[in-house]
Amino acid sequence: MKNTIGTSIQLTVFGESHGPAVGAVLDGLAPGIPVDEAFIASWLSRRRPSGRTDTARVEKDEFRILSGVCDGHTTGSPLTIVIPNADTRGSDYAAIQDIARPSHADYAAQAKYHGFQDKSGGGHFSGRVTAGIVAAGAVCLKALERRSIFVGTHILSCGGVADEAFGPDCEAQICSLEGRPFPVLSDVAGAMEDRIAEARSCGDSLGGIIQTAVSGMPAGVGEPWFDSLEGVISRAVFAIGGVKGIEFGLGFGFGSVRGSEANDPFRMRDGRVVTLTNNSGGINGGISNGMPIVFNMAVRPTPSIALPQQSVDFVRGADAELRIKGRHDPAIVRRICPVVTCMVAAVLCDQLALRFGTDWLAG
Amino acid sequence: MKNTIGTSIQLTVFGESHGPAVGAVLDGLAPGIPVDEAFIASWLSRRRPSGRTDTARVEKDEFRILSGVCDGHTTGSPLTIVIPNADTRGSDYAAIQDIARPSHADYAAQAKYHGFQDKSGGGHFSGRVTAGIVAAGAVCLKALERRSIFVGTHILSCGGVADEAFGPDCEAQICSLEGRPFPVLSDVAGAMEDRIAEARSCGDSLGGIIQTAVSGMPAGVGEPWFDSLEGVISRAVFAIGGVKGIEFGLGFGFGSVRGSEANDPFRMRDGRVVTLTNNSGGINGGISNGMPIVFNMAVRPTPSIALPQQSVDFVRGADAELRIKGRHDPAIVRRICPVVTCMVAAVLCDQLALRFGTDWLAG
Amino acid sequence: MKNTIGTSIQLTVFGESHGPAVGAVLDGLAPGIPVDEAFIASWLSRRRPSGRTDTARVEKDEFRILSGVCDGHTTGSPLTIVIPNADTRGSDYAAIQDIARPSHADYAAQAKYHGFQDKSGGGHFSGRVTAGIVAAGAVCLKALERRSIFVGTHILSCGGVADEAFGPDCEAQICSLEGRPFPVLSDVAGAMEDRIAEARSCGDSLGGIIQTAVSGMPAGVGEPWFDSLEGVISRAVFAIGGVKGIEFGLGFGFGSVRGSEANDPFRMRDGRVVTLTNNSGGINGGISNGMPIVFNMAVRPTPSIALPQQSVDFVRGADAELRIKGRHDPAIVRRICPVVTCMVAAVLCDQLALRFGTDWLAG
Amino acid sequence: MKNTIGTSIQLTVFGESHGPAVGAVLDGLAPGIPVDEAFIASWLSRRRPSGRTDTARVEKDEFRILSGVCDGHTTGSPLTIVIPNADTRGSDYAAIQDIARPSHADYAAQAKYHGFQDKSGGGHFSGRVTAGIVAAGAVCLKALERRSIFVGTHILSCGGVADEAFGPDCEAQICSLEGRPFPVLSDVAGAMEDRIAEARSCGDSLGGIIQTAVSGMPAGVGEPWFDSLEGVISRAVFAIGGVKGIEFGLGFGFGSVRGSEANDPFRMRDGRVVTLTNNSGGINGGISNGMPIVFNMAVRPTPSIALPQQSVDFVRGADAELRIKGRHDPAIVRRICPVVTCMVAAVLCDQLALRFGTDWLAG
Repeated sequence: MKNTIGTSIQLTVFGESHGPAVGAVLDGLAPGIPVDEAFIASWLSRRRPSGRTDTARVEKDEFRILSGVCDGHTTGSPLTIVIPNADTRGSDYAAIQDIARPSHADYAAQAKYHGFQDKSGGGHFSGRVTAGIVAAGAVCLKALERRSIFVGTHILSCGGVADEAFGPDCEAQICSLEGRPFPVLSDVAGAMEDRIAEARSCGDSLGGIIQTAVSGMPAGVGEPWFDSLEGVISRAVFAIGGVKGIEFGLGFGFGSVRGSEANDPFRMRDGRVVTLTNNSGGINGGISNGMPIVFNMAVRPTPSIALPQQSVDFVRGADAELRIKGRHDPAIVRRICPVVTCMVAAVLCDQLALRFGTDWLAG
Repeated sequence: MKNTIGTSIQLTVFGESHGPAVGAVLDGLAPGIPVDEAFIASWLSRRRPSGRTDTARVEKDEFRILSGVCDGHTTGSPLTIVIPNADTRGSDYAAIQDIARPSHADYAAQAKYHGFQDKSGGGHFSGRVTAGIVAAGAVCLKALERRSIFVGTHILSCGGVADEAFGPDCEAQICSLEGRPFPVLSDVAGAMEDRIAEARSCGDSLGGIIQTAVSGMPAGVGEPWFDSLEGVISRAVFAIGGVKGIEFGLGFGFGSVRGSEANDPFRMRDGRVVTLTNNSGGINGGISNGMPIVFNMAVRPTPSIALPQQSVDFVRGADAELRIKGRHDPAIVRRICPVVTCMVAAVLCDQLALRFGTDWLAG
Repeated sequence: MKNTIGTSIQLTVFGESHGPAVGAVLDGLAPGIPVDEAFIASWLSRRRPSGRTDTARVEKDEFRILSGVCDGHTTGSPLTIVIPNADTRGSDYAAIQDIARPSHADYAAQAKYHGFQDKSGGGHFSGRVTAGIVAAGAVCLKALERRSIFVGTHILSCGGVADEAFGPDCEAQICSLEGRPFPVLSDVAGAMEDRIAEARSCGDSLGGIIQTAVSGMPAGVGEPWFDSLEGVISRAVFAIGGVKGIEFGLGFGFGSVRGSEANDPFRMRDGRVVTLTNNSGGINGGISNGMPIVFNMAVRPTPSIALPQQSVDFVRGADAELRIKGRHDPAIVRRICPVVTCMVAAVLCDQLALRFGTDWLAG
Repeated sequence: MKNTIGTSIQLTVFGESHGPAVGAVLDGLAPGIPVDEAFIASWLSRRRPSGRTDTARVEKDEFRILSGVCDGHTTGSPLTIVIPNADTRGSDYAAIQDIARPSHADYAAQAKYHGFQDKSGGGHFSGRVTAGIVAAGAVCLKALERRSIFVGTHILSCGGVADEAFGPDCEAQICSLEGRPFPVLSDVAGAMEDRIAEARSCGDSLGGIIQTAVSGMPAGVGEPWFDSLEGVISRAVFAIGGVKGIEFGLGFGFGSVRGSEANDPFRMRDGRVVTLTNNSGGINGGISNGMPIVFNMAVRPTPSIALPQQSVDFVRGADAELRIKGRHDPAIVRRICPVVTCMVAAVLCDQLALRFGTDWLAG
């Protein structure tokens, strides 16, 4: 389902980078969830470009809720949020629009849409569309909070600088991210920003690894086989441009350990079943096991760089040199964190509603 | 959709490890695809336990096609394959069925199914169910072949031994895997098998990294956002027990490079657009770009090990020691390769049918 | 989703009339529902040909549950039921298989499947496939019973003979159908059977109107817009060959009344909201209103008649005369009733699981 | 999928009667379809209240396309249309909002949404939401036209006045509806309008029967079982408030004829297979047979009538008398015709894209 994800609760995204607006429709969320516009705005502001590590494009993100909210609560009907595009400069792109930007979607899109795609600023492929995910996902985060489920994402490493990882007490770590403009758990913001700024000054960009944790998830949610939590979460995060890998728990580290090291021993603690390690990332057989859900994602360096690149003119079928102008993020690791958090919130609400019914999230 | 995946072409799996049978229903595949039972059998034999690195369980995999095939070709109606379970020994499990095997689904399943789940040999969570995926996926592989699309999977590393990776000429590499009982591209089978056998002799197990390549995929297939090729492939492979990570192209390597190193330059070659590197793994913006699709997966060590483990009795709510008997694979990296290949074939057929119509695969 | 229906609980059907077997996979039903093979068999026997109004084909309907049941209860995993085909006579069809039987699917199937379809006895289009729906739906009926929800279907009219309609106390009427080989509420079985037998003796067939009622359905289930109860029920029953119309409550009668006559007045009765009439058929705005759900379906006369008919040979592209041999029902109104009942049970379980969670049906 | 319908092409609706806007997202339609805003406006104007048979509510229907269109053509990305609500008068409803309007969704919605639903003017249940269906469906109609497929809907009967039915040459009849403010095929507009005006003058409302035809549909589209054309069309039209029955071809008339009268004889005509009658309504076995698709729908009288009615106050749990004020249509048979036409266009585009691929509609 192309631009729609979910089974009981569905999220649909729309919009182009330089069109009138981007936005989202969130359908099926329980009636009675409080919708606080300031809360949504605060999540949009986490995603908004700011400071020396982001694009200079100004996005005001003044959103409007067109449906699905009445008297400050969800109604149970589709919740539509529209975020008009303000600072559009399509002309930056006109000169190069037949020359495929390396590792962007331009050429693949040409093969699929035959030239009818909106080419300005990436069109529908633009990260701008994630603003809709953030706005809708923030409502889902609020719903999860009522059930004491928290989701957070930080930059685990970037430019050779490593943050500390989510540990067993990740709820406190998740909450500590609130209000931090640069989403790291330890005191490495300055060092990471330095590396990103340095890459920008070279006309280049940086990738990184980000990490998400979910605390408070009840055991018994998710499915074996095709609706495994790993499967539904990965499908959702791969929607976000720049994500090229995901690993749950020990992830690729499983490739070089033995079962006796990798297995998570069970113990009773305060009448509850827990595991002493969480190499499984909170998921066994596709189903939550009651431990925090933890996963890492690989984020590629922004493909838009100022350095000259080899390319082709895909209309004329000829080699071409490319110099990209315009305003771009030298690294998206900072701005992608709230997008992943909000995306995951929507997916988890869906799984919880399937398991416990649509009203469960309304508490 | 729990046990069903796909939009235009759908695969449904069913069965339990020690029940009467496992199997699959493949629905929506074009009419007129040749169905060669020997071809299906050869794929099942690749997955079957054999030799010193696998479980001692004997699986004959004598399958029966119940529907959807007439005169040796698909009819276009649901193709149902049933694979009876022969060598079942539920009694190996009776003694331990209330003690959660660490890193198995036992405890998560208890939270979800309240004790009604079939506990013998993992029940519906068993890798045995993947035999249905292989049987149905083999039919999809045959369909893809008619369009000169090939899929192959090998063990990239296991026990500290590394195989060579898929390169630009991966069609030849894919085809070279045919007939090799141990799926590696270079001469490392013996060394890997030694490491696995050694782990077994210690009552332990090994994980590994496997790699899949798809050659011949036309550009312009897949979707931005929620049906990205990365998203649909990852949802499919995370269905397979033991997979805990996936990365496309350079994957987690993107975290430590710059854009200028990571971007894939475009060039014209023989009138075709190609990229000089394939760090993107053949996918940009969720859509195939005409280069080989390449991705790696992390496979955890088999959780069933002979060594004693700490656990809990989840019915009595008490700590317990666990010693697992029964027959198990000390590493599933060998047997999982054909499962991934067949799973991916089904998913790609679905995407191709959506893009080009149901008849396209019939050529 | 071609051969699969449902969102939280999914039913997949497969099989051909003269292939090895027909069957169904029911996925997502709560764990812990009792599965009584005798109960399933009793529903299959209601659908089985018998007596003077049905085909002479002998169907033993010895089914086998391949998965999803353990110790007499659903496990929560896919429940697969296979019903082997016993009395197949494909040769009856060989002579005519390129001549389209009027009002059968033969010609439409040729346009879709290009000759690869299984043509014997209707292949996958055969009413034989509904045996799988009955077997799986019977398990759903048992689940509904635990929540005091009952579903029943009777012949409202056939051959000019009318049965009484479901009234306000329809639970008793529904239960009265149990054990009646000919599903009518009043004493009209003999008269209807006479008319059907008379049509058969002329080499002809008869249509009819059937009616379904659901008692005990809680208010607040279903959705406005695309998952309206009317919509999901109608999509499900139109899957059954021969159904060509459906109307809820007053249905087509709404076309000739005024709002003041059509509206259902609300009143309080014993602390419960009820309506004094049920012209809405228990559904308003797509959502159950707590009154019985009642709908009628038009069933066409069996297209297979012994009388000669005008047709075409669709391979040679020429006019042709057709005389159909083989064994056929002169009217399917009797045998279709349990199929509709079981089909509707599956659909309602799905809607209830979406609303109240997967465990609700396990009570 | 609650507010979303479709498999390859998906339509999502949103909005409330007295909220900021209604609208729709149409996803998956081929790139390159011309989007003519005047054409969309003309379809919205067909649905708009006007004249003596409709509500006095003024709807300007000034729509805005937020995404998915570039240079006058679809881009292949989600096409979002927003139609602001202008003339809202929520206060008309404040006094009665806890008293369930008979045969409206008020009580069912209360059971589902627990009071959080937007109650003004029907909220999300309002026919106002169908403006989004019309706007998006008009784009689909334009796509179908490029393949010479035409869809039209007229009032077959209302208030005892009957229109002529669609016949074999229905393309001309469909096109004749263009520009007629009152959608009938023969000269009965005045008589029908008189009956509706008379009902209004009594404080009452009228139902009717409407009929849709599709010409030019290629044979071989649709599926047996759960994606039968009857099933997907009926699910779509039952989404539209007021539709309570649907019948294809002879429909309920099948109940009182014999097979020899009901079957449609095949003949060759100009090298094409046709049927001499079209009792099947163009569909056999769920698949189009190349004849026009024809179906009738029952439309209930508007439940909002000025006459006093018996009801309950569902918050206080007490009987109550109800007098509805506000502005209402005394019959929706006129305004529902373009809604059904546009809804059916979207559903057929989806089926055609599944069958022939996404690009087929772009011609």
